[in-house]
Amino acid sequence: MKIAIAQLNPTIGDLSGNAKQILEAAQKASQEGIRLLLTPELSLCGYPPRDLLLRPDFVAAITTKLEELARQLPTQIAVLVGTVELNPYAISKGQKSLFNSMALLDGRQIKQIFHKRLLPTYDVFDEDRYFEPGYQANLFSLSSLKIGVTICEDLWNDEGFWGKRNYEINPIEDLAKLGVDLIVNLSASPYTANKQKLREAMLKHSASRYQTPIIYVNQVGGNDDLIFDGNSVAFNRLGDVVCRAKAFTSDVETIEFDEQLKDLLPASITLLPETTEKEIFRALVLGVKDYARKCGFSKVILGLSGGIDSSLVAAIATEAMGADNVLGVLMPSPYSSEHSVTDAELLVNNLGINSYKLPIGDLMKSYDQLLEPLFAGTEFGIAEENLQSRIRGNLLMAIANKFGHLLLSTGNKSEMAVGYCTLYGDMNGGLAVIADVPKTRVFSICQWLNRTKEIIPHNVLIKPPSAELKPGQVDQDSLPPYEILDDILERAIHHHQSITQIVEAGHDRAVVSKVMKLISRAEFKRKQAPPGLKITDRAFGTGWRMPIAVSQYV
Amino acid sequence: MKIAIAQLNPTIGDLSGNAKQILEAAQKASQEGIRLLLTPELSLCGYPPRDLLLRPDFVAAITTKLEELARQLPTQIAVLVGTVELNPYAISKGQKSLFNSMALLDGRQIKQIFHKRLLPTYDVFDEDRYFEPGYQANLFSLSSLKIGVTICEDLWNDEGFWGKRNYEINPIEDLAKLGVDLIVNLSASPYTANKQKLREAMLKHSASRYQTPIIYVNQVGGNDDLIFDGNSVAFNRLGDVVCRAKAFTSDVETIEFDEQLKDLLPASITLLPETTEKEIFRALVLGVKDYARKCGFSKVILGLSGGIDSSLVAAIATEAMGADNVLGVLMPSPYSSEHSVTDAELLVNNLGINSYKLPIGDLMKSYDQLLEPLFAGTEFGIAEENLQSRIRGNLLMAIANKFGHLLLSTGNKSEMAVGYCTLYGDMNGGLAVIADVPKTRVFSICQWLNRTKEIIPHNVLIKPPSAELKPGQVDQDSLPPYEILDDILERAIHHHQSITQIVEAGHDRAVVSKVMKLISRAEFKRKQAPPGLKITDRAFGTGWRMPIAVSQYV
Repeated sequence: MKIAIAQLNPTIGDLSGNAKQILEAAQKASQEGIRLLLTPELSLCGYPPRDLLLRPDFVAAITTKLEELARQLPTQIAVLVGTVELNPYAISKGQKSLFNSMALLDGRQIKQIFHKRLLPTYDVFDEDRYFEPGYQANLFSLSSLKIGVTICEDLWNDEGFWGKRNYEINPIEDLAKLGVDLIVNLSASPYTANKQKLREAMLKHSASRYQTPIIYVNQVGGNDDLIFDGNSVAFNRLGDVVCRAKAFTSDVETIEFDEQLKDLLPASITLLPETTEKEIFRALVLGVKDYARKCGFSKVILGLSGGIDSSLVAAIATEAMGADNVLGVLMPSPYSSEHSVTDAELLVNNLGINSYKLPIGDLMKSYDQLLEPLFAGTEFGIAEENLQSRIRGNLLMAIANKFGHLLLSTGNKSEMAVGYCTLYGDMNGGLAVIADVPKTRVFSICQWLNRTKEIIPHNVLIKPPSAELKPGQVDQDSLPPYEILDDILERAIHHHQSITQIVEAGHDRAVVSKVMKLISRAEFKRKQAPPGLKITDRAFGTGWRMPIAVSQYV
Repeated sequence: MKIAIAQLNPTIGDLSGNAKQILEAAQKASQEGIRLLLTPELSLCGYPPRDLLLRPDFVAAITTKLEELARQLPTQIAVLVGTVELNPYAISKGQKSLFNSMALLDGRQIKQIFHKRLLPTYDVFDEDRYFEPGYQANLFSLSSLKIGVTICEDLWNDEGFWGKRNYEINPIEDLAKLGVDLIVNLSASPYTANKQKLREAMLKHSASRYQTPIIYVNQVGGNDDLIFDGNSVAFNRLGDVVCRAKAFTSDVETIEFDEQLKDLLPASITLLPETTEKEIFRALVLGVKDYARKCGFSKVILGLSGGIDSSLVAAIATEAMGADNVLGVLMPSPYSSEHSVTDAELLVNNLGINSYKLPIGDLMKSYDQLLEPLFAGTEFGIAEENLQSRIRGNLLMAIANKFGHLLLSTGNKSEMAVGYCTLYGDMNGGLAVIADVPKTRVFSICQWLNRTKEIIPHNVLIKPPSAELKPGQVDQDSLPPYEILDDILERAIHHHQSITQIVEAGHDRAVVSKVMKLISRAEFKRKQAPPGLKITDRAFGTGWRMPIAVSQYV
């Protein structure tokens, strides 16, 4: 039996467009003799729909669209479509009103509905907010095959792999007991760096433990802060990869289940990116491209300081949008170094993007004059530093508003963590492209970018990072070296380590205490940050929920 | 038996300070012969602690502090303290690692621990993210009394009152079957307008249905966007109110349980605010006061446009901080009307606050000159309008940064809904004071404020609302009248109505469609808004989780 993976890129809420993608994939697959087409979790409305699910008319429209799609599909092909279903027991049993479901469409009908059993409610996931867990094992018969259906998290709970369970039940165990021939896993699993290796190790373990082939289908595309990487992959009953779809792009792959062998046969296997740097770069390119496209922007704008962060974001934007659609704005001040302009100009030249120069010295003077009576007798400080950044932020927004461009903000994760950034200044933007990329990783990605020819100017890579908001300023005046800072941040943010634990790992107590205080005190800035593309398992975004008005107990 | 309600105002994470509040209340109560002291949900760490709960050192510090508090308490008094407990079955059963608990401290020991059974996971609540539900009815004996313990949501599921259940079990029913003499409900229930009437109707129903007296204890104080109103209240077994604590302030109330009558005796009853306007005003005052205090600000700053929104916020700030601690900044432009300045000056005079005037005309010219080559040949539009607002935003932030003031933003809910506000301009601020107050309610609160003497200048109340960003502009050029807009918004946002339903309620289809599109398109602005004080059951804040890059399906 021929089965196809439709690794689709839905737009949240675009029911007609998403249904059309499914229909077209099914029509093509049907002509190629494919019997079963698999689509990702919630493929009809896109994942995550969030509070759109609270609107009864949205839920009703999904149901209507699903029925319409069932009638339009070719009769020779069965399609699993991700959808939501009303829970008929919601009122009588005091349950949530929806299920996160897959519908089996076959023969112009909705043949069967399967409900997701394990609902992630951690990090960026809020599924308990909307959904009731499914209460039974999900399977169906097609031709001579018994096929088990799991939805994303359903397969992420095997204690044999994790050493423990996060939910009481294990759906794959239930399916194995029922003797299924094949398990499909329809997912919307967000990208994080190197996650594919973890997924494949887990799926390999499950396929071989239960002697059952598994086909994992993932959504692809950027939706706000989340990037879905695709990377759909299939395993035979020995746990060998027999098929892998492309990363970071829509793809359809065909795979054959041999009904004699009771196993999947080898098919096309896309290689994984060779380096983490390449993988992250491609992820961020997709994130920018899809945010712009799904919000209706064709051009982007960003400030170019001659520093490494804005240089990397410019390179990502160029790859995502095309050089003609990127405008870099240079906004030197009297405190800017000579190289801030020359390095930015070199970058503009290397990338072939558009640029414009707007010196801000006169505006600084105008603000100073207006504020002079009020500020008389005070020292130059944070107020004056931030003002420069906010003048630049205003200029960028003025141009963005005038010409309908999307402003990209360029701050990295290390800065966002400790608040080394200006709210309403350099934080301005519709999308924060590298907000989840630590500074040390920004360097390594730039080095990778330059592997064959210079894209990021050499001087940008070697000069000491500086915000250039006062004469001679460098980041390391007020922050520890980035290698140290990033290690502390990784321990505090990703591993929830205490000050004591971080000190025991070899860091200076005074430095650690200072960094921890900075993280806590910068919460009010992060609260107002634009969506930042998530590439780690703990990003400052929808999955980071910290109070602002806190008294640090440490 | 004498029982005291300690309606406390904790700071999130301030374990020492919060424990001290509990200890002091217990010491005083003990001297007055009180046998049992009740504190709110999570009284030790404050509610909501959010992702601080993901830090093992934070959880360990709570446990340590609880044990320390147990040893410090007077021996003659038992105290129920809100805390978190590790779930010993987390790994073996695949459950969440914590319980939301109440500890009974008595005789220098932790005598018993009770776990919350119903975990709200909707609106601003994320309890399934952290907690496992308790698995049994909670009760303890003290003297001759059998006392049932419920935590907040545990009492919000009686189908006799709601007509349906939201959870399968009903803890009060279980307690009634066990024959308890008294039920206590320890809560952290956020304020929304008129919610106290609903709470009391529900509790009255439960007390009389189960013939059991109920003491409801609520947290008080502002924590970021949430305001806790206190309003702790007790009911006898007939369902009559026998005691009510103060609203919007810390309070300790004593109430006697008569062991012969098996009922609570009448005690002190604070009256509820006479009007919704007064109630909301007091709530917002508390929200501002506590946000400033808990973040360490003693002074606030805001822009005064002479309009009704900034006038109301100035009045709230004055009540919260004292007139000396409020700085209003007038920033007229060449497009500002004469009355924008005179009305603001009158307000400054009425409130007795500090003020400063910074005309922005020269700065507008400086930006125009710098951008002229780029903008040549384009029409005056959104870019130029926003620039004025952003110049003002920069000036306010410069002063706030220079003098360490908290900037309050002044936009109302109607504007936030349709995006009639400037990101990085008038949206700037650490706290959005009236972001959940619809424009029509802004008017009614101002009218209430003026009930005995003029606080908000009369002309502010009667002139047509205008952003004054171009000559002769008024809000109603681009928006429907606020009475109509607010009704559409209420239906769309609070009641999740569809366009068709709103049209059927008597609104014009073109207007409704336009408003719905504006709501959706303004999501990127709301994403970057400061925390806004919540006063309705559906605010744009932590409980509003909408995707940005969506294709509207309507």
